[in-house]
Amino acid sequence: MTVTEKPDWYPMWKELGLDIEKHDQLLDILPDIFKAVYIDAQINRPEGMGFFDFVVGDIHGIRVSELKKAKEKGRKIIGTFCLYIPDEIIFALDAIAVGLCGGTNFSNYASEDLLPINICALIKSALGFGIGNICPYYAMTDILIGETTCDGKKKAWEILSSYKPVYVVETPQCKDRPQARAHFIEELKGLITKLEKITGNKLTAEKLKKAMEKIKTKREQLRRIYETRKAETIPISGKDALLVSQIAFYDDPDRQIQMVGNLADELEQRVKEGNGVVDNDTKRILISGTPMAIPNWKLHHIIETSGAVVVAEETCTGTRYFESEYPKIKGKSTDDLLELVADRYLGINCACFTPNDNRLEDIKRMVKEYKADGVILYTLSFCQPYDVESIEFEKILKKEGIPVLSITTDYSSEDENQLKTRIQAFLEML
Amino acid sequence: MTVTEKPDWYPMWKELGLDIEKHDQLLDILPDIFKAVYIDAQINRPEGMGFFDFVVGDIHGIRVSELKKAKEKGRKIIGTFCLYIPDEIIFALDAIAVGLCGGTNFSNYASEDLLPINICALIKSALGFGIGNICPYYAMTDILIGETTCDGKKKAWEILSSYKPVYVVETPQCKDRPQARAHFIEELKGLITKLEKITGNKLTAEKLKKAMEKIKTKREQLRRIYETRKAETIPISGKDALLVSQIAFYDDPDRQIQMVGNLADELEQRVKEGNGVVDNDTKRILISGTPMAIPNWKLHHIIETSGAVVVAEETCTGTRYFESEYPKIKGKSTDDLLELVADRYLGINCACFTPNDNRLEDIKRMVKEYKADGVILYTLSFCQPYDVESIEFEKILKKEGIPVLSITTDYSSEDENQLKTRIQAFLEML
Repeated sequence: MTVTEKPDWYPMWKELGLDIEKHDQLLDILPDIFKAVYIDAQINRPEGMGFFDFVVGDIHGIRVSELKKAKEKGRKIIGTFCLYIPDEIIFALDAIAVGLCGGTNFSNYASEDLLPINICALIKSALGFGIGNICPYYAMTDILIGETTCDGKKKAWEILSSYKPVYVVETPQCKDRPQARAHFIEELKGLITKLEKITGNKLTAEKLKKAMEKIKTKREQLRRIYETRKAETIPISGKDALLVSQIAFYDDPDRQIQMVGNLADELEQRVKEGNGVVDNDTKRILISGTPMAIPNWKLHHIIETSGAVVVAEETCTGTRYFESEYPKIKGKSTDDLLELVADRYLGINCACFTPNDNRLEDIKRMVKEYKADGVILYTLSFCQPYDVESIEFEKILKKEGIPVLSITTDYSSEDENQLKTRIQAFLEML
Repeated sequence: MTVTEKPDWYPMWKELGLDIEKHDQLLDILPDIFKAVYIDAQINRPEGMGFFDFVVGDIHGIRVSELKKAKEKGRKIIGTFCLYIPDEIIFALDAIAVGLCGGTNFSNYASEDLLPINICALIKSALGFGIGNICPYYAMTDILIGETTCDGKKKAWEILSSYKPVYVVETPQCKDRPQARAHFIEELKGLITKLEKITGNKLTAEKLKKAMEKIKTKREQLRRIYETRKAETIPISGKDALLVSQIAFYDDPDRQIQMVGNLADELEQRVKEGNGVVDNDTKRILISGTPMAIPNWKLHHIIETSGAVVVAEETCTGTRYFESEYPKIKGKSTDDLLELVADRYLGINCACFTPNDNRLEDIKRMVKEYKADGVILYTLSFCQPYDVESIEFEKILKKEGIPVLSITTDYSSEDENQLKTRIQAFLEML
């Protein structure tokens, strides 16, 4: 894919009912931010990042036009906000899943009257994008699939349902219990019934199996990227790896398999050649906490312009996205396969669950695997599940001799200098 | 029961491991607050309130000593924090349920290192009471039963479990679905198994039925109190009615049936006689929102010293505690009965559920039933479920011509003057 003159997307955006004036403002800001964070502040980037740069450069264009074409052919577009909604099921029904979380406070003006002040930046942003008609992906969706992973999102679906069809999947709270698993499987069946109605398609074991194989392959490519980050030679910046994860949430899975796969090939080669993006003695940071939706690159940018490098993200836009996996995809019926799907998703350790000791174990394991010199626990303000866990985790990790810094922030730039000071002090201590 | 010289409770408190110094400070403050709020600021109180005044006057004494005696006879004390944990099941197993929520920020010093700043006052207080060893009820419990009604509490159980045995009942999120009901019943069975182990008793249909009858009768007495508040003549202040509800959470059910029943008799008589605590043209306020744990009387006190009266509370320490009821208690097996229990509890409309339109219907119905002139939507800061609902509810109620004021606050006294100003302006508008 080569970067050429962008087509005129205005007719499409107008057809989608976007607020063109606000949308123009949004698209005016993004290139400068991207250039400052990704282009000017980095050297020796992998060539394979060219594709991802291109995707950002045309963020509301080519992918949206693909969705439009698919929609014209009768395919349904399904918006999701959390990795607990299995893409496998959506694609198996020949629909297209698009992750819709928002990573900038630009859109907050459209949601501020609908939400309390004390709610997380991600929810404010996502609702603002949708309700403010500045997100063509949201505008393209036929239905939004919510979940019950946190109080804020659970109640946000009620607001969104005044604007769009919304279906909520009840995700479990005590996931390790057999009754929670049984309940989750019933909920997935409810989702299937809903999606069958919307798509007019019927789920079969064959279709589900095929979709499971494809999404698994997609996850495997992301896993390959992360594997290379464990090496002494770090072949990709944290910022770039984060961008790859962020784009995985809404790009076409087949293209993702190809392009992330290509990047993984390159990174594996780089590791062999010892061709890193930073010196091998650069301090290695593991980030753990709340997701970072595009274009939330704030923490990575501060860390990586302070002389350190992010080697892994124990987040939903990081390892939680791909680590849990099917042992083997086998089963004669959709029921058999759904058990595999449920177990794969229940294998993800999010702070929305109680207890969630496995997340702490994940962090400890990742510190070793990625040879991290320190951990930054990252919490979006007002995200109570991660906020509570960070207090206990910080104490335990410190006790075990792992340097930790806890950061609670949002999408504003007001605290950037303060964060930079704290992070630099932390890095000097390592 | 007559108020006599209080026994020396210090040996009991010391035996329970209370922090005597801090506990003394707490008990030093309470009588003055109670006197100012309940005694000095009210006239013509029902005689039946004498019992409840006595209970507050000896708040950590006689009831705790009863629990001690029960415990010495082998009965187990079960701490709960939410009305979704069925007292019926606990009492059926010959254990004693004690509601443990905290309503003062006095205890926050003991929990502040364990919790984020952005978490609701009730959780900070409850954890502080427990961990700070200043609550003899908490100290008396053999186990704490948590639930998954909100993010803050869900994660708080993880903290508490370092100090006490904790068992969590997964309460549903989308309660109107059959799979949620089935899951909740399984969770109640899990609770029964846990409690059977702890108590050494076995649940039978007969025992459960008997406990259901008793707790139902207890709820009926509270309902009688509230019924009298619908009358033109208001026979009890909101403050006093709130206190009755608050004490219902931890007092002996048999005594509650008797004493709340006596009070109800008196109030019914007062209504007949036209003997109100305020003039009949006093503005009538319905409060709706988050629970008010003892001694949180802040909002009621401001309203009722501003010339209005609270006629009902659509809260967990109000109508949510008793409105949902068994149609008839019948069933041959514990399984039959558990379905009734589940349905009774799932009939309560808390903001923890999605959707929760029925709560709005409850408010509208109650405005009519209690002839409310206005509604105050009350939210404890950082309680996201109620915070989000209040925004939408305020708009809808206003559209229907019902005056509404939204208040978000905590247990501090810092905003009292500001609240008083806002509430007085609201009352003048009615």
